[in-house]
Amino acid sequence: MGLKYIVGATAEVSKTISESDVYLFAGITGDFNPVHINKVSAEASIFGERVVHGALVSGLISTVIGMKLPGPGTVYVQQDSKYLKPVKIGDTITAVVTLKSVINREKGILELGTEAFNQKQEKVVEGRAVVMAPSGVNEDK
Amino acid sequence: MGLKYIVGATAEVSKTISESDVYLFAGITGDFNPVHINKVSAEASIFGERVVHGALVSGLISTVIGMKLPGPGTVYVQQDSKYLKPVKIGDTITAVVTLKSVINREKGILELGTEAFNQKQEKVVEGRAVVMAPSGVNEDK
Amino acid sequence: MGLKYIVGATAEVSKTISESDVYLFAGITGDFNPVHINKVSAEASIFGERVVHGALVSGLISTVIGMKLPGPGTVYVQQDSKYLKPVKIGDTITAVVTLKSVINREKGILELGTEAFNQKQEKVVEGRAVVMAPSGVNEDK
Amino acid sequence: MGLKYIVGATAEVSKTISESDVYLFAGITGDFNPVHINKVSAEASIFGERVVHGALVSGLISTVIGMKLPGPGTVYVQQDSKYLKPVKIGDTITAVVTLKSVINREKGILELGTEAFNQKQEKVVEGRAVVMAPSGVNEDK
Repeated sequence: MGLKYIVGATAEVSKTISESDVYLFAGITGDFNPVHINKVSAEASIFGERVVHGALVSGLISTVIGMKLPGPGTVYVQQDSKYLKPVKIGDTITAVVTLKSVINREKGILELGTEAFNQKQEKVVEGRAVVMAPSGVNEDK
Repeated sequence: MGLKYIVGATAEVSKTISESDVYLFAGITGDFNPVHINKVSAEASIFGERVVHGALVSGLISTVIGMKLPGPGTVYVQQDSKYLKPVKIGDTITAVVTLKSVINREKGILELGTEAFNQKQEKVVEGRAVVMAPSGVNEDK
Repeated sequence: MGLKYIVGATAEVSKTISESDVYLFAGITGDFNPVHINKVSAEASIFGERVVHGALVSGLISTVIGMKLPGPGTVYVQQDSKYLKPVKIGDTITAVVTLKSVINREKGILELGTEAFNQKQEKVVEGRAVVMAPSGVNEDK
Repeated sequence: MGLKYIVGATAEVSKTISESDVYLFAGITGDFNPVHINKVSAEASIFGERVVHGALVSGLISTVIGMKLPGPGTVYVQQDSKYLKPVKIGDTITAVVTLKSVINREKGILELGTEAFNQKQEKVVEGRAVVMAPSGVNEDK
């Protein structure tokens, strides 16, 4: 495609995470950990209320990678994530991907910074991905 | 809870990933990358058919952690994953978690091996997690 | 079926549109326009809060047509809709269909008025449909 | 935003419509017309199999409008659609939006052509929309 990737380029997606998102995610994965889907026991936990599955928040990061940067055709090689703060039902999460470096220009192997923030601008996830971008990618430092 | 964790202990969950799983996951995250939800273009891609979101497979690993090992009450600290092979719609995936080491016994910080296999026993995801187990956890080497 | 259609006849369905309706609709269609699924940016928009997809409201009109007037077996030929007011999450919408005229008696081609109202009796959608009713339909003016 | 709209510009989205899409859409709208969700009676109908709700296909058109052309912030004023051919479960639908004319430059009122095609390049929906684009829109003929 001949796209030029600029180190430092960023892309993002935002979504308010609804109760139905969490319940559907639980239904797909079978992760019925009470902290996600039991209001009574979640209120008695250290979180004080039901929290969103970390893997759902990671899913938003993968959306940015698959849809925007590098976008459709990208192959996911690796994702490392640290979960810094809990995400509550109703939080508005912004997943941000940043091009950190070009590992292999010919093969289109890129290193990406991957973060997610809540509506208070608190960082809730911090990580790093390695992806193989669609062929024909170029890059300008 | 006074559970005893044995290094080397494992737990797993298995699921055949349906088209509706993939479509709902796309619907939750907004990841409408054609390789997941467009049969025509996926068949023309290097995958040959529609593939499952990597983050959905990671979700199954998080299910083992949140439901079985260490189980309800666990706090996710870190997840690193390498995506080794594509997962197709209809594949039956087994997510396996293994207790690798106890990083901090008092705080219940554990290191876990995290893997996923398809129905041909091919490893599709390999990784490592750090979690904080519910209080009162003990462990025997 | 030998049903008799009376010009002026009406039928309706009502539903309170939930957050999960809007989120599932976004998930089916991929319409993740922030005004629908981002509480923070929707509150900063001219709408002041998240609004329902217009096409979802149109879906309620199609429900009346497919379920009641003319009912099961109807083929949708044409739908024209004007979106008059925004629909908010939590609004209770009543879709109303009225038989306006019989365009072709033998083929069962009918012209329908199609409207939707919110719980304040404000008209939110106004339109017109042309449908082909199941065979054997008669009509009395 | 100062974007310049070129008459003739197009944007599109594609999706293979799954059974789960049709069932969720039925669940949201209540349109349980047997032709959509009853395999037995649909096979005995003129369609020969279950067909997709027309309003769901219209939803894909609204996705293009809300996400791409003109994109986020757009207000839907009017949508007229003719349903030309039935869409079957499993069809891959491409919704295409084309800027036809600028009705009012200051207010950002645009006329759009709205079409949908199946995987055989058959046109299944043809229509026209009027939308109000986000402020600051300019246009070059």
